[in-house]
Amino acid sequence: MSKFWSPIVSQLTPYTPGEQPKLARLVKLNTNESPYGPSPRALAAIAAEVSDNLRLYPNPDAEPLKLAIAARHAADGITAREVFVGNGSDEVLAHAFHALLKHGRPILFPDITYSFYPTYAGLYEVQYRAVPLADDFTLRTEDYLGQGDAIGGIIFPNPNAPTGCLLPLAEVERILQGNTQRVVVVDEAYIDFGGVSAIGLVQRYPNLLVVQTLSKSRALAGMRVGFAIGHADLIDALERVKNSFNSYPLDRPAIAGATAAIEDEAYFRHSCDRVIASRERLVTQLKALGFEVLPSAANFVFARHPGHDAATLASRLRGDGIIVRHFTSARINQFLRITIGTDEACDILLASLRQHLDMSPASSA
Amino acid sequence: MSKFWSPIVSQLTPYTPGEQPKLARLVKLNTNESPYGPSPRALAAIAAEVSDNLRLYPNPDAEPLKLAIAARHAADGITAREVFVGNGSDEVLAHAFHALLKHGRPILFPDITYSFYPTYAGLYEVQYRAVPLADDFTLRTEDYLGQGDAIGGIIFPNPNAPTGCLLPLAEVERILQGNTQRVVVVDEAYIDFGGVSAIGLVQRYPNLLVVQTLSKSRALAGMRVGFAIGHADLIDALERVKNSFNSYPLDRPAIAGATAAIEDEAYFRHSCDRVIASRERLVTQLKALGFEVLPSAANFVFARHPGHDAATLASRLRGDGIIVRHFTSARINQFLRITIGTDEACDILLASLRQHLDMSPASSA
Repeated sequence: MSKFWSPIVSQLTPYTPGEQPKLARLVKLNTNESPYGPSPRALAAIAAEVSDNLRLYPNPDAEPLKLAIAARHAADGITAREVFVGNGSDEVLAHAFHALLKHGRPILFPDITYSFYPTYAGLYEVQYRAVPLADDFTLRTEDYLGQGDAIGGIIFPNPNAPTGCLLPLAEVERILQGNTQRVVVVDEAYIDFGGVSAIGLVQRYPNLLVVQTLSKSRALAGMRVGFAIGHADLIDALERVKNSFNSYPLDRPAIAGATAAIEDEAYFRHSCDRVIASRERLVTQLKALGFEVLPSAANFVFARHPGHDAATLASRLRGDGIIVRHFTSARINQFLRITIGTDEACDILLASLRQHLDMSPASSA
Repeated sequence: MSKFWSPIVSQLTPYTPGEQPKLARLVKLNTNESPYGPSPRALAAIAAEVSDNLRLYPNPDAEPLKLAIAARHAADGITAREVFVGNGSDEVLAHAFHALLKHGRPILFPDITYSFYPTYAGLYEVQYRAVPLADDFTLRTEDYLGQGDAIGGIIFPNPNAPTGCLLPLAEVERILQGNTQRVVVVDEAYIDFGGVSAIGLVQRYPNLLVVQTLSKSRALAGMRVGFAIGHADLIDALERVKNSFNSYPLDRPAIAGATAAIEDEAYFRHSCDRVIASRERLVTQLKALGFEVLPSAANFVFARHPGHDAATLASRLRGDGIIVRHFTSARINQFLRITIGTDEACDILLASLRQHLDMSPASSA
């Protein structure tokens, strides 16, 4: 706190990202990164940008990337005018709060959700109401209907984070139909691991903004690229805010790498399939260890053990060099969020868990 | 305009960056990029990041970069706690408006200045008063003194843009002394081409924030890295806003490349010296052609010809494949802002100008 701070600054609760440990050799299952590298075509495209041309500004509109994203969704009628890109989906979401969700009325999002949402709301002075998920951690569509102009917008992840639970597309559509006068942001960071995207609904719902990222299913967390697809009017609002904030949020290597990653559909599908197969295997084995595992359509699982405290388990895993994410908020403080690693990484996790659950015959604990 | 837009959106006047032409073979002297590539060490560091590790998030604090910047300014008592980094100095400036300049009172900046400032003010709903420069386009220190609590802060580039004029450090210090109760942001995007940085004043003035970029003197416009140096309290405010907006604005290659560029002092000095030598040569020759050239401490010159309309000249240069920047606002619409290119590029510009000024014996106009 300082007299020099703008008044809003002391009211902020900044987001705390998952730990990025400096130690090598850790089994890192805490921030939902891909266990596999990016497309070799993406790496080649990035490498090709490493030249004296880095002295030049990037394309301020990241046009090649917008065209590649639009081309991938051409069957849904998407053109580059319906695409916005940003420095990770976090930046895209921030601009969406500022440009589309700030109407002087509270917005709605689930009580258990991406913990950056209340932070954005604080930054842009957007009121919100956290809507409790059902006891089974599913989102109840009805809670988002019939509020009329009392609310200024809606945002939720699908699949939800950190639960991994998927809302069926028909339910997403019901929320859109019930909220034609306000923007509904569907944050699809994890959609590629088992869900059906709402992008196919964009042509029919001018109130829909779908946000995705290249950090998860395209293994480019280190390059910071996200995007949004929606009606051109919504994209215009995002562009106006972006161009009032930073003309060039994507650097040259990021534009090139993201474009190539979007274009390499085969590699993308193969990586997602491998993650999904590992997830199903991990879920089976966690259940065999007595864990309750929420149904996941993401590249992570959310699991609790009826006989073991989650914080204690997380700390014991850490002692074994395995990092998972543990949240302290009341409804979910008995869960661990575990990123799907390679099968080998999952096996290391399972071996450690077995030991700490005293289920391993070799246990010395 | 759309009912879905937050009310602020329709009030914005987004910034228009200089053109990034798609045609090759243009002589591009319009966006103040370096005519030389980045440090070979920076290119090597970027190339070394092109690996499967791009699947992992970057260091959210870009710590190696902060340490390198602090080390370079250790003689001025700077540690990493006094350093903030962002996605280009544009992002740093945006956060400074939000975190440090928004106090419900107008801020001051020059009438002729970086045209992004009024845009930021619009985005964050910060009132401002544009203070006219003197007739010779210098900043009058007195205009920024004695305003007391009527103003909420001050920001100006030094050297100023697009004039290139430098305010002597003693005058910067007078502004700091006269404004101890509010933040003074000194935007030093061009300081390395002939000025003395105010970073040496940071220890004595907790109200000072110095902003710099790697886009110009370190030839990394394509990588998007800028930074700020100031009292830890000011940096804390920027971090709080940044961590409420986007945890990872710098990607892995950008952190690595920027760190190496900061560490390669010899290459940096050599590049700056070359640009300065070319500038002095260009200024001499422009004056010989009858141009009035404002004294420049930047990597560009701001020049007008008493006998020729600037817009016409810019358009004729464009016809010859040479792009310079022309601004249409009233006081400066007879000037051209010309980036310092290689001597070869400057010679092409001069040859074209000679022709259009009808001073070349070979002219066929």
